Parts: sequence; C-alpha cells; structure tokens
Amino acid sequence: MTSYPKFVEFHEEGPREGFQIEKQSFPPAERAALIEALADSGLSQVQVGSFVSPRAVPTMSDTEELFRLIKKKPGTRYSVLWLNRKGFERALRVPEADIYPALMCYASDAFSRKNNNCSAEEMRDRNAEWIDLYAENGYAPSTAYIMTAFGCNYQGEVPISAVTDLVKWFKDLCADRNVEVPAICLADTVGWANPDQIRRRIDAVREIVPDARMALHLHDTRGLGAANFHAALEMGVDLFDSSVAGLGGCPFAGHGDGKAAGNVCTEDMVFMCHELGIETGIDLDKLIDAARMAEEIIGRPLAGRIMHSGGLDKYRQKSATE
Amino acid sequence: MTSYPKFVEFHEEGPREGFQIEKQSFPPAERAALIEALADSGLSQVQVGSFVSPRAVPTMSDTEELFRLIKKKPGTRYSVLWLNRKGFERALRVPEADIYPALMCYASDAFSRKNNNCSAEEMRDRNAEWIDLYAENGYAPSTAYIMTAFGCNYQGEVPISAVTDLVKWFKDLCADRNVEVPAICLADTVGWANPDQIRRRIDAVREIVPDARMALHLHDTRGLGAANFHAALEMGVDLFDSSVAGLGGCPFAGHGDGKAAGNVCTEDMVFMCHELGIETGIDLDKLIDAARMAEEIIGRPLAGRIMHSGGLDKYRQKSATE
Repeated sequence: MTSYPKFVEFHEEGPREGFQIEKQSFPPAERAALIEALADSGLSQVQVGSFVSPRAVPTMSDTEELFRLIKKKPGTRYSVLWLNRKGFERALRVPEADIYPALMCYASDAFSRKNNNCSAEEMRDRNAEWIDLYAENGYAPSTAYIMTAFGCNYQGEVPISAVTDLVKWFKDLCADRNVEVPAICLADTVGWANPDQIRRRIDAVREIVPDARMALHLHDTRGLGAANFHAALEMGVDLFDSSVAGLGGCPFAGHGDGKAAGNVCTEDMVFMCHELGIETGIDLDKLIDAARMAEEIIGRPLAGRIMHSGGLDKYRQKSATE
Repeated sequence: MTSYPKFVEFHEEGPREGFQIEKQSFPPAERAALIEALADSGLSQVQVGSFVSPRAVPTMSDTEELFRLIKKKPGTRYSVLWLNRKGFERALRVPEADIYPALMCYASDAFSRKNNNCSAEEMRDRNAEWIDLYAENGYAPSTAYIMTAFGCNYQGEVPISAVTDLVKWFKDLCADRNVEVPAICLADTVGWANPDQIRRRIDAVREIVPDARMALHLHDTRGLGAANFHAALEMGVDLFDSSVAGLGGCPFAGHGDGKAAGNVCTEDMVFMCHELGIETGIDLDKLIDAARMAEEIIGRPLAGRIMHSGGLDKYRQKSATE
C-alpha cells in the first residue's frame, strides 16, 4: 500500500484561511510581505484572500488592495476564494488575481446552511451555473471541493454515500458539459477525519472517477492532521491545501472558543515529505522563515512545530563534518 | 500491514516531563490534583516526578512531598523517574511510589554526555548494575529505553545499527541474568522520527527480540508525532509514553528557544485510538478535563488540540437524536 507520490504540491491557504478568522484586520503591507515570502519559498499557489461579503468576513474586504501591493513572482499562482457569481466577477476585475476556478459543495446540509445560507442541494446545483460561467470566461474548473466530507459539527456523522453521491453528480455534470473531471478535493472542514476514513473515502471516490486527481484539505482540529496527511500520501495523493504556521480555522465551524486548531501546517508537512524522500519544490528554511513572519504579524505563538524547533539540516551538516 | 492492536496502553508523563521543563516550580497541591484527575480518567500509569539531582532539575525536587499529597486510585501505577542508584534508593524510601524499574541507554554518545554526563557506553554498562540492583530488591526490569533512537541534535544522524546493537546487548544481558527481555521502548527524544523510520526500526528490533513488547516514546517536535504514532499502531505497537495537553520536552535537548513542542499529546492520541476502534480504557472527556486543568496550572495555551476543540460525542449524539 505504501506508494508515495514522487512530488507533492501544496496550495498555501494561510493568507486567506488564516487571517480571515482573526478578530482584527492586519495591514495589507504586512500580508503582502508574507505572501511574497511564501511565494519565494517555492510554493506553486498562494491564496491571497477572498471576494466574499465584507459584512460576513470584514478581514478580507481589502483583498483588491492587497493584490495591488504584492510583487508577484513568475510561476506562482496567486489565487482568491469566491463563493458566488458576484465574487467571481470581482476576481475577474482584478488583473493581479490568477483565476483558479473551483467548484464547491457540501456533504452536510446543516453546514451548507450555516456557511452559505442555502441547502446543500441548492449549493450543489449552483455548480452547474458556475461551470457555465467559467466556460463563458474561457475557464475550465480546476478543483471540485466537497466540504465537510468527513463529518460535521452541526449534522454529526457524514455517511460515505453523501460524498460519493456528490462525486457522481460532478462526474455527470462534467460529462454533460464535456469538460474533464477536475481534481476532487475532500475537505475535512471541521476536523473529523481519521486515517482509516481518509483511505476509505479516497478509495470510494477513485472507484467513481479513477482518472481524476485527488486532493485533500485537512485541519488539525483534533490532532490527527499529520496522521491523515501521511495516510493520504500512502494513497498517492499529491495535492494538499495547507496553511503556513498552522494558521486557519473556519469562523463558522462552531467550535466555540475560537482556539480550535487550523489547517495542517504547511512547513511541518513539507518537512514530512522531504524526510520521506518526496519532493515538493519548496525551500524548507525559507518557508520556516515565512512561518516566523506570520507569527510576528499575528503577534501570538502559532501552532506550527518546526518553526519553533528548526529543521534537521544544521544537525546533519554537523554530523557530516565532524 | 494494517493490524492495529485491540488495546493500547498509555503511560502518562506530563506531570514529570511536562513540569520539569518549566522555569518556575508549580505548587505540589495543584500538581497532585492534576495527577488525581489523570488517574481518574483511567490511565494505567502516571509518572509523578523524578528523583534526580535537585540542582539539575529543581522543579522536581519536591517529588517526595508531591507523592504524599496524592490520593491514590487503586489499580493506577504512580511511577517516578531515576537515572542512577541514588535516585532508585530514594524511590524505595517513598512508600507511595510504585516501582517501575526501567533500564536506560542512549543511541547517541553526544546526547548521553550532555544529558547524563557520561559516555553512551558507560551508560549502557550501568544497566548491568541496575539489573542486579533491581533483582536485589525483588524487581525485574519492566522497560528498556533506547533514547535518541531516531536522531540527535548533537550528533546528527543515528544509524539503525546503533539501535540494534543496544537491543542485542540488552538481549544478552537479560539472558545472562536469566530475566525476561523487558519491553523495548524506542524514544524519539528530540523529534527526528518519521513514519518510515518508525516502521524500519520496529522491524529491526523485532528481528532480534521477537517476543519482547515494543513501546514508543514520541515527541511532536517537528509536527510528525501523530503520523509516527499511527505508523506504530499499524505495526501493532500497544504501549506509548505521552503527555497530557502535549506538555513536555527535554530541558537538555538543545532546541534553544524553549518553545519546541513536547511529547505526543495523550488525549489527542487516545482520541485517534478510539476513532480507529482501538480501546484504551480511558474516559476521553475526563482526560480532556485534566488537560484543561494542566493548561490552567501552567497558565498559557498548551499544544493539545482536542482540549481546545472538544471531542465528537456531543455532535454524534445530536445527529442520533435528530
């Protein structure tokens, strides 16, 4: 079963998912510097912010300004999140934003209603409009997200059929529109996944769309993030969302005290990949520096581990030269 | 390869390993209350403190007093750490201390010199005296620890042969003394392990002593703790040291800023076991309460995850009753 991918791609979500959950807004200049440091480490994609309701998520209302401040590095994709047509159209008007057109649905109806103010079915059906909207603008969908794919704090258990039904629906939708099935990203939005569940659900999705790329969006809410990540690596998954310094957490997840952990930590997972002989194209030391910058901006100790302990290269060099 | 054990035993080290690293001493009454809460959650063993040099580790100098304060729960073992004959003899004089006689050696010579002020070879050879000392007092060794079994911040890489040589040495020592080979505990003292290494080293140890129980002492120094724990579960390992709330970290590990993460977090790993259908005999909610108590005593946010997000039972009950 151990068949690691040769190369793993990380989509950095910290600047969006990490900063949106904070009570205060942080200066765009500081966030731009962080995004530049992240891109400089070799990350292929950095999510800059979101074009969503400024009332719901005031910390992201300055995303246009932020985009204008970033000195872009060639070859890096600077993506942005939207949740409806209006948001997508805002993105189209920002020349600095790289359009990475996602589809998005919920395996939990209760979560869809809390997070998006509509039923999961309605949210699912909107993807048909989105795929057309993307096509009108010359884009094919890159990723189909299935959120709360492992469990939900409002609904409780999410059966595997809730996930596979959505994958079948996406498959039919893509066949109907004559577009390739995009990457299927299972999102453990509120931290219910365990390694066995990761394997079973990846297997189940692959049975339906064997040629689609698999991706995971993991949270470390209950401390299993690294184990889930590793279980997915062993299934050959080679695309992960993650957050520098372990930033993140959904403001509508319903965890109460706001201290619940965020996404799996990019630099810790990059370290894991490198230790297992998997390439990432990322300079770990530069990424650790970016994590420390994030901690300085936020102004409190963040959840990342290796940013506090440091990598192993310096110790290995010591043993090699002695 | 997936062959989880049916039952996993946790040896709680937080009250010792967690509190020894702190700059200040905490009142014995508060630590006694924490130890009682930990025992009440169903943990089979709680390490109360250490009988080591009060100059080297002043925070543990009141361990005798602490023992006298604890209301002991029948069936729980209240253990204590010692690193030499004097420490063991101190333990024998404390009637409340349960004697859990460990052997102890280092796979890294440099670490042995920093941590124990003697060469790894000298430390290893002392175990022959220890085993005799234990026998004189009516005890057989319960666990043989191999510290820095995965790497060392002073020496760098630790080859697998450094571990297997020690296991062979313990095997011969036990044969010579006509005692059973104790549990072999590989300690990732400074957080170098990765899941592949965990598997290879467990395999290598089992080749030498196939009947010995395997145990692991893991740290989450670089964020791989949960992945390493899970890899060991899949190898059937059923005994782990861990720390409530993720407390811990060795004061002589050489990580510099003192913010490096501690042991794998007991309640997060108990949660993982339960989610995978593995029994632990532990009441997770009570253990989470104990973790929160530890955070209150220490007075700053601790590394544990589920203590901040809460378990899943309340959400599952919701879905079951709706």
